[in-house]
Amino acid sequence: MQRISTLEVRACVGERVRVKGWLQSLRQMGGINFMVLRDGWGTLQAVAEIGAESAPLVESAAGVESVIAIEGDVVEMPRAPGGIELHNLRIEVVSPVTEVLPVSLNKRKMAANLTTLLDHAVITHRNPERRAMLRLGAGVMAAFRAVLVTRDFTEIQTPKIVAAATESGANVFKLDYFGRPAYLAQSPQFYKQILVGVFERVFEVGPVFRAEPHDTTRHVNEFVSLDAEFGFIENHFTVMALLRDVMAGIIAHLRESYAAELGLLHVVMPVVPEKIPHIHFSDAQELILQRHGVDVRGEPDLSPQDERWLGEWAKEEFGSDFLYVTGYPMRKRPFYTHPDPERPEYSNSFDLLFRGTELVTGGQRLHRYADYLAALEKAQLPVEPFESYLEAFRYGMPPEGGFAIGLERLLMQLTGIPNVRLATTFPRDMNRLTP
Amino acid sequence: MQRISTLEVRACVGERVRVKGWLQSLRQMGGINFMVLRDGWGTLQAVAEIGAESAPLVESAAGVESVIAIEGDVVEMPRAPGGIELHNLRIEVVSPVTEVLPVSLNKRKMAANLTTLLDHAVITHRNPERRAMLRLGAGVMAAFRAVLVTRDFTEIQTPKIVAAATESGANVFKLDYFGRPAYLAQSPQFYKQILVGVFERVFEVGPVFRAEPHDTTRHVNEFVSLDAEFGFIENHFTVMALLRDVMAGIIAHLRESYAAELGLLHVVMPVVPEKIPHIHFSDAQELILQRHGVDVRGEPDLSPQDERWLGEWAKEEFGSDFLYVTGYPMRKRPFYTHPDPERPEYSNSFDLLFRGTELVTGGQRLHRYADYLAALEKAQLPVEPFESYLEAFRYGMPPEGGFAIGLERLLMQLTGIPNVRLATTFPRDMNRLTP
Repeated sequence: MQRISTLEVRACVGERVRVKGWLQSLRQMGGINFMVLRDGWGTLQAVAEIGAESAPLVESAAGVESVIAIEGDVVEMPRAPGGIELHNLRIEVVSPVTEVLPVSLNKRKMAANLTTLLDHAVITHRNPERRAMLRLGAGVMAAFRAVLVTRDFTEIQTPKIVAAATESGANVFKLDYFGRPAYLAQSPQFYKQILVGVFERVFEVGPVFRAEPHDTTRHVNEFVSLDAEFGFIENHFTVMALLRDVMAGIIAHLRESYAAELGLLHVVMPVVPEKIPHIHFSDAQELILQRHGVDVRGEPDLSPQDERWLGEWAKEEFGSDFLYVTGYPMRKRPFYTHPDPERPEYSNSFDLLFRGTELVTGGQRLHRYADYLAALEKAQLPVEPFESYLEAFRYGMPPEGGFAIGLERLLMQLTGIPNVRLATTFPRDMNRLTP
Repeated sequence: MQRISTLEVRACVGERVRVKGWLQSLRQMGGINFMVLRDGWGTLQAVAEIGAESAPLVESAAGVESVIAIEGDVVEMPRAPGGIELHNLRIEVVSPVTEVLPVSLNKRKMAANLTTLLDHAVITHRNPERRAMLRLGAGVMAAFRAVLVTRDFTEIQTPKIVAAATESGANVFKLDYFGRPAYLAQSPQFYKQILVGVFERVFEVGPVFRAEPHDTTRHVNEFVSLDAEFGFIENHFTVMALLRDVMAGIIAHLRESYAAELGLLHVVMPVVPEKIPHIHFSDAQELILQRHGVDVRGEPDLSPQDERWLGEWAKEEFGSDFLYVTGYPMRKRPFYTHPDPERPEYSNSFDLLFRGTELVTGGQRLHRYADYLAALEKAQLPVEPFESYLEAFRYGMPPEGGFAIGLERLLMQLTGIPNVRLATTFPRDMNRLTP
């Protein structure tokens, strides 16, 4: 008999079916074995009398996480999870597990500390909540691409081994490349800008590497970056309009296609306003003085507390979970940032705050060759390592800009989990290289 | 006036429009400037009298690749490329290019050697043929994902910094990870297998890194791998059936959505048969003896000449550009390969040959913990570096398998270009780390 998925079983009440998957749980009650089988789509309860029917499990000493096949009759059973279960079973053990698991998986919340969860991520990812988190990541990537493809963006894949550090010499992993030094790309920034000169509109989903020696709940040293960059923009507001649509597309896609995962993780989904409110960096500092009596004017950046206050204000004033802060001071932004033509000490860049925490950074970049030469000189950076990059601007580039979303940070903030490592498939941090 | 794309101009005959892009070519003929403007969608001819109309170009000394905006009337003109052109122009120079380009781009085939092409890839990618090649890559990635998503595969992103070499200690890039040694992943093999235990069906599109010291037309040291892996297979034939559908999906999507690129590159598109013919490794060696009088029996692998002969045979016998060779000897396959239960010196693995060259490798993997322990011992590999990986099999894994397609190799073989570097966005080889 052909195997069907647990999802398909719901349409087969009264029929005999064959399912395959992992034995997620097994308990005995009054001479009956209650089993929950989990496959790639979901779970299904199956009920067997202890004795002949359950004999294959007993004979192979198959415990939880054993891979099994079950043939049975689909019966409506209002008390069963999902309202159906399998009876009159023929059980076949495919891969018996005879050892006790290092972590018990079949509670919704696993009773294990973070280190144990991560040490055994190979197994703990099988827990429904953990699996739901990773699946949301797949949904975010798909939605990001879908929004951009419908806007004629071309997908790119740029090299991760590079000859020079992307933005500065700091925080970069060094590599032995056939006896020469090389580095891991901190971002696809330069390459996505270069490819605006080729395709006009580009995006990339790929790993980035940051050798930041920070051991915090918000840092991992390798993460997935969702990058977009495009030409013929007016200024950073064109970029902000696109990012708004990308965020709306992601939220809509998750709502539509990941309702089960969102429910399991108790995610309070935000509404993305038609137009996300925005405030200039200098006005934000004035606002903080007025509302909270704290004078942060003159500070070159916003503190986490500043961001929380601004988030509260956006919620009160506009009912919005999202807020753009624009015009960060040039001195805190990388050399390729485009200044505000009216107030050149401020930049045409922005941060998107989500519920009072920075989620996305973006902006308009320089696009004139002469501006790059001046910016490198001002930053006291040599021209030579950037020569290939500069070629793109030397030979014609329109006004352009873009943004980068950190996939794991987005999942962390959306789901409200306390540590970005729990939104990362196999996290890399200062102390962790496995699994 | 709102800018529209060159693609949209075709629907605007008789109207006045505004386009923006790069000045791809500029030639004078009888007091007239013929310009070709290129944007992210295509090209458009614009015609201006030398004098007032062309003055902005002259004043800013704007040569080819300058970024310009043109307002003009859309006129049907059968002799013009695409059958339309712009008249009565108002030209605005956005970013003038006043230097001569290092490579002339506006011939279809660029007159430059490979080194120059690659040294200036930042610019040479703007050539329509080069751009078409890279765009086909985007199409392949999108089609690969689409086929798998409709079959309920979950997209994964696995770490590229790893604690131990994936398959062997050789050909791996070594990294300084906060003072500890680490490596760049040679493939997502172990992680995709692990995640079969979580999602059952997974795929990944991402970079892989091979420190192979080979300077050939078919090798680069970083490339994009399209990986799929799934559980509850019968054997490698289940994997081959999926790969057939993936290849058919890729070819169909390119035909449908990339006709212009395929035309420009003169690609002779293959037909993917409903069922790709297959031959066992040992029968393939017998066939070569019969047809060509060369006795390669006893060889552990097929040579490029063997593959060409088999490709010719598949074309003659089945009219197929594709051929599966199954059952490669175990001793030439990695330790996780599943043996043929009937003839354990042969494996449940395959290569997909396309027009007589290996294109994809895949197969069934071991799925029982005890088999892994035995395989590692036979390969004289220690267990310890593989412990996290083995956890997946220790705690229940179904029969599973998968394959990996090298994106750039696929583009190379499909388009018939002589060097894989020309199918790579920014190639990395033994001598090249830039651009």
